[in-house]
Amino acid sequence: MIFYYLDLLGVAVFAVSGVLAVSRRGLDLFGVLVVATLTAIGGGTLRDLLLDRHPIFWIADPIYLLVIAVATLGAVLYMRIRSHPGKVFLLADTLGLALFTLSGAQIAESLDMSPGIVVVMGTMTGVAGGVMRDMLSGKIPLILRRDIYATAALAGATLYLLLQALTMPRSWAFAFGLAAVVGLRLIAILHGLRLPVFRIP
Amino acid sequence: MIFYYLDLLGVAVFAVSGVLAVSRRGLDLFGVLVVATLTAIGGGTLRDLLLDRHPIFWIADPIYLLVIAVATLGAVLYMRIRSHPGKVFLLADTLGLALFTLSGAQIAESLDMSPGIVVVMGTMTGVAGGVMRDMLSGKIPLILRRDIYATAALAGATLYLLLQALTMPRSWAFAFGLAAVVGLRLIAILHGLRLPVFRIP
Amino acid sequence: MIFYYLDLLGVAVFAVSGVLAVSRRGLDLFGVLVVATLTAIGGGTLRDLLLDRHPIFWIADPIYLLVIAVATLGAVLYMRIRSHPGKVFLLADTLGLALFTLSGAQIAESLDMSPGIVVVMGTMTGVAGGVMRDMLSGKIPLILRRDIYATAALAGATLYLLLQALTMPRSWAFAFGLAAVVGLRLIAILHGLRLPVFRIP
Repeated sequence: MIFYYLDLLGVAVFAVSGVLAVSRRGLDLFGVLVVATLTAIGGGTLRDLLLDRHPIFWIADPIYLLVIAVATLGAVLYMRIRSHPGKVFLLADTLGLALFTLSGAQIAESLDMSPGIVVVMGTMTGVAGGVMRDMLSGKIPLILRRDIYATAALAGATLYLLLQALTMPRSWAFAFGLAAVVGLRLIAILHGLRLPVFRIP
Repeated sequence: MIFYYLDLLGVAVFAVSGVLAVSRRGLDLFGVLVVATLTAIGGGTLRDLLLDRHPIFWIADPIYLLVIAVATLGAVLYMRIRSHPGKVFLLADTLGLALFTLSGAQIAESLDMSPGIVVVMGTMTGVAGGVMRDMLSGKIPLILRRDIYATAALAGATLYLLLQALTMPRSWAFAFGLAAVVGLRLIAILHGLRLPVFRIP
Repeated sequence: MIFYYLDLLGVAVFAVSGVLAVSRRGLDLFGVLVVATLTAIGGGTLRDLLLDRHPIFWIADPIYLLVIAVATLGAVLYMRIRSHPGKVFLLADTLGLALFTLSGAQIAESLDMSPGIVVVMGTMTGVAGGVMRDMLSGKIPLILRRDIYATAALAGATLYLLLQALTMPRSWAFAFGLAAVVGLRLIAILHGLRLPVFRIP
């Protein structure tokens, strides 16, 4: 049940990040709604397609679309008051990354996938929505920037499995996994931390 | 039956729009054919994948690929005579947007989806082919430009449902939905109309 | 069985091409791994989704992910010694294009698809991974460049069917198909060959 609400939250924050990503593009309101929707359901839709889970989560349960509409409207109104989307964007994107990574991992795990698949599925679910948003809005995907991004997703999904292997209950492991993704990403942003970069000598 | 022919028409006009989109890129004929094919089947393929309709429409019925090949050849030959693709491109894209939006909505409706899903599925089916085409050819997706685009698809799909709720027969509602998408989009292009734009103050 | 090893090889070389494509972007190691993975499984995943083959190949058999990890590490280490990725990139991409084109065609054929579908499915499987890689890394997709690319895939898949129709055993036809894709592409690159270009007069 808690997973369901977290999934709704993930959809909402990714919708917000979609709104902020195109906030300077001069789209009309419905155009913004379409971009927000694609961002919000991209990762989970890919997850469900890959795992052959039908109906897709937002087709099975229309509440998701309602949440997206409300989150989009809220973000649009917020933008009329406060005009610097930078920090809020990074926060919404980070929270969305964390929530979808863990939900992707948890669902793959509940289908008895092997640990490697669980981690890959989690990471892919987490990064897909943001990649679609960035490519749609003509930006370089965050995944290709130098700060810790995919790495945070990978670490969170791995931690989630590891803690359960150490007999921690699933919901606690989920929470620690979330915290790991958010923490790693925010620390990396705040302190400009980077993993050793792969670069041609 | 009429829906089948309209679907074929949608595939054809999107193939043409794909050809025109890359007409200045110096692709060879087979490369053009691949781009045209991806543009033409992108929206419907996404629709079928999301709704778990297998086999996918163009796998089930090879006539679609034949239509794409013929439309592509026709567009290539046309381009050798008339060299200003702008207007024809917008027309083909608008018609494709309308046809796929309504076909997506109609198929979702025939699977007993809720009204919200029908509208979203219609809009998504309508815009997906064009988005893939634009991203593939390195352009800013039409969906992100300021004129009425996603809004037209949304309005058409909504009108289609609304008119049926008012007891209009399905095929009439389909026709009015089509006309709404094409009309809104063309009027917007011709008169430079835009919805109130969402922009940071 | 031989098809299985060739599929593994295809995954490996596309992973390498993914590494080389982002080698100058300053990603950290895990970021590189994510891009390599998406490149390597993109084409085959699309193939399995379109043909409704579940579980997806890399979900069914985790060895694929292991191969990707090893190939990625190998490519990263190689790049620390030799720093000119150009030729190796083209070679890895060409081999991946050939292997996935033929594997896509072979699998569609084994599902009794019509010849047109087999050729389209092969071409699409072959080009999809590279297109995703190029779009993800902000490059113009190879498919849109002027040298023979999609054409080579199309020719290879067609030859594969043609030779079998002439009663050649499947594995031989597969080998000739591979050779056709690689040969056409390499000859085109080496000699700057192009098909007659489709261009506005």
